[in-house]
Amino acid sequence: MIGVIATMTVQDGNGPQFEAVAAELIEKVRAQEDGNLLYQLTRSKADANVYKFMELYRDADALRAHGTSDYFRESFGKLGALLAGEPQIEYLDGV
Amino acid sequence: MIGVIATMTVQDGNGPQFEAVAAELIEKVRAQEDGNLLYQLTRSKADANVYKFMELYRDADALRAHGTSDYFRESFGKLGALLAGEPQIEYLDGV
Repeated sequence: MIGVIATMTVQDGNGPQFEAVAAELIEKVRAQEDGNLLYQLTRSKADANVYKFMELYRDADALRAHGTSDYFRESFGKLGALLAGEPQIEYLDGV
Repeated sequence: MIGVIATMTVQDGNGPQFEAVAAELIEKVRAQEDGNLLYQLTRSKADANVYKFMELYRDADALRAHGTSDYFRESFGKLGALLAGEPQIEYLDGV
C-alpha cells in the first residue's frame, strides 16, 4: 500500500473554486480507479487556505494509473492555477 | 468528518518497536471505535524515521472518544518514549 499526502495552499478567495474542481476529480478517481483505496480532501483547521488530499493506493501501479490519467492531468492543471505556491507531495508506505 | 494527520519521528533504531506498539493500538481502534473511518499508519519514503498516522473520524464526538480512551492514552505514552521529538498533530475538516 502507498500513501500520499498532497498539501495545496490556495490564494485568498480561491477556496470554493478549488473545492469545486477537486470534487469533480474525486468523483472520477472513485469511479474509475479500483486501485485507489482513499481519496479524501481535507482543509486545515489552522489555516482555511491549506488543503490536504489524503490518498491511499493498493500499489505502485495504482498510483501510476492515477498520475497518468487524462482527468488527473487536466484537473491538476486547473487546481494548480488556484494555488499560492507549489503543492507539497509526500509519498509514504503503508505499515 | 474530521481528519487528523499525526507525524511522529522516532529515534534511530526504534522503528520496529514503534510499529509493534502502533499495531496493537490500531487493532483496538478498529475494533472499538465505530466513529473512526480510517486509522492508517504510514512511513515516509523520504525518511524511514518519520511515521504518519492518517486518521478520519465521523465527527468531533468520535475524535473525543478516541483521544480519551484508556488504550489510546496507554499507547500514546509508549509511543512517545520512542520519539526523537514532539509529535506534530494536524486537525482538518473533511471537504
